[in-house]
Amino acid sequence: MAQRIGQYTLRFDCPPCIHGYASVVGKKEATGPLSGTFDIVNEDSHFGQKSWELAESKMQQLAIETAVHKAGKKVEEMQFILAGDLLNQCVGSSLASVQSGVPYLGLYGACSTMAEGLAVGACLVDGGCAERLAAAASSHFCSAERQYRFPLAYGGQRPPTAQWTATASGAVMLGKEQSHLQITHAILGQMVDMGVKDANNMGAAMAPAAYQTLSALFQDTGHVPGDFDRIITGDLADVGGGLLVDLFLKDGVDITPVYSDCGSMLYGDDQDVHAGGSGCGCSAAVLCGKLLNDMQAGQLKRLVFAGTGALMSPTSIQQGQAIAGICHAVIIERKD
Amino acid sequence: MAQRIGQYTLRFDCPPCIHGYASVVGKKEATGPLSGTFDIVNEDSHFGQKSWELAESKMQQLAIETAVHKAGKKVEEMQFILAGDLLNQCVGSSLASVQSGVPYLGLYGACSTMAEGLAVGACLVDGGCAERLAAAASSHFCSAERQYRFPLAYGGQRPPTAQWTATASGAVMLGKEQSHLQITHAILGQMVDMGVKDANNMGAAMAPAAYQTLSALFQDTGHVPGDFDRIITGDLADVGGGLLVDLFLKDGVDITPVYSDCGSMLYGDDQDVHAGGSGCGCSAAVLCGKLLNDMQAGQLKRLVFAGTGALMSPTSIQQGQAIAGICHAVIIERKD
Repeated sequence: MAQRIGQYTLRFDCPPCIHGYASVVGKKEATGPLSGTFDIVNEDSHFGQKSWELAESKMQQLAIETAVHKAGKKVEEMQFILAGDLLNQCVGSSLASVQSGVPYLGLYGACSTMAEGLAVGACLVDGGCAERLAAAASSHFCSAERQYRFPLAYGGQRPPTAQWTATASGAVMLGKEQSHLQITHAILGQMVDMGVKDANNMGAAMAPAAYQTLSALFQDTGHVPGDFDRIITGDLADVGGGLLVDLFLKDGVDITPVYSDCGSMLYGDDQDVHAGGSGCGCSAAVLCGKLLNDMQAGQLKRLVFAGTGALMSPTSIQQGQAIAGICHAVIIERKD
Repeated sequence: MAQRIGQYTLRFDCPPCIHGYASVVGKKEATGPLSGTFDIVNEDSHFGQKSWELAESKMQQLAIETAVHKAGKKVEEMQFILAGDLLNQCVGSSLASVQSGVPYLGLYGACSTMAEGLAVGACLVDGGCAERLAAAASSHFCSAERQYRFPLAYGGQRPPTAQWTATASGAVMLGKEQSHLQITHAILGQMVDMGVKDANNMGAAMAPAAYQTLSALFQDTGHVPGDFDRIITGDLADVGGGLLVDLFLKDGVDITPVYSDCGSMLYGDDQDVHAGGSGCGCSAAVLCGKLLNDMQAGQLKRLVFAGTGALMSPTSIQQGQAIAGICHAVIIERKD
């Protein structure tokens, strides 16, 4: 059973374990600073498909299959697949798993989806609802660009605060059976609306939500940032990440020694992505590549993975609605 | 703890209870056969808002508030809100609860969303993750029509198999504390793709998924249709409902004595909705109006509520992808 500690945080007495994980990315992501940490790289972002939307589905399908295979299981042995993406009606995820024959739970948390899937998945495993399940998320630069912004060929200008939607997917297989990577805590966040209306500055819209969720996690658990090897958000990128650091500094808390953001980690300064990466797949692939690799290797023992989402649609932006941010988080620990 | 019985069904040993429920609808829905069963009716479908999208949000917000108030609680006492809708990026639901200050879990299951929320919500309550939470879903004819089909003023023709998106929302407050309406079982369904590509015949796309989930539920629990007072799908409407009856008849099982569909119940033959109602709000409002009223009054003791969703987007349809169906279900029992 999960125990609620403090106001928001859930502690799992028999922590659900990570049995397998995998990341799949496009060429741009594979040639950045995290080169070599991904399981599968596609050279042309098409993944052998005839549309960008099908390419995204294929990428997510590959991530799920690879994560499950690395755990020595088959996809059809999963009891649930929890997945989501940025495409309208989340078709990237439904098309990815439609042939799997596995019960499917569609999630929508914008770029927080991977963390939402891990948190809900951990609750389901902990509560006896599943022995094993897969959680996944994806995004694709080309499918997102034409859905949210302009046709690719238009070449629209991007302001310096804009983030670059990653062509990436990550998947985790969680299970009841013990392994040394465990999800010990989860926290589902509330929406925070600070009135940001600029869809080209989503880092600013999400930073207050990350601050709220991480503050609640520290308060509920009694931990301070230094108790963790890394605190990772995804994806506030450079602008939002800087704001998060500032918000904590106002409380006299310096998170910088342990803090990084997936959107800032994925691309190099020479890759012309402006503020950094974004998209459900960005944090999913960084977690399921570099971060879990480092945990697997024993270089990280205790990690906060905090997914941040900007809850908006092109219609809500056109109608002048503010962008609410949300942040869900899990604590992942290595137990030897 | 939940017990997995058979291959897919979860049985809750301490069943999560329904403490409150509410339905909010537009004028067309309120003047149909279920007139008088709804909590709030808005006469002009605007709900005092300046856009159809905000009207939908307001409707869902009212449903959540009313359900929680009927249980003698306040919205801020909820530990989670689980919600979803049909709008791109599920903004109807995020805008509905952005000011609530309650941790928010975004779901996407198309018209199966209310059942998905009840199933996941029951798992969270049962697993100790929440003492009390709200699950909600909504749809609005006008916001759906311009997003999925044509501008309202265009007056596009609809074929006889088309369904009418209900302007409706429903919400349930679930809790650990005992009450006489209980969710005893839940089953999350897998996607079923039978190759249907006609977005004007979503009943046909969803019926095989309903058949699969209900068959699994019967097999896992050992029940036959006659063990239930009612088996309710939502929303297959007239075409899909007929197909579901036929699929069971091929197995020698006649579900007709106990079977109804929310899409067929909501509108009268004289309301020009063709095959019947649809939209996340249709089954949500019929459940949280007529059906739970009848359970509350003791007229129904044991109900299967099976939400059916058509997983597609306008882009996936334009690209020639088939529409996968999905069906999630819960068993609700009255214990005196």
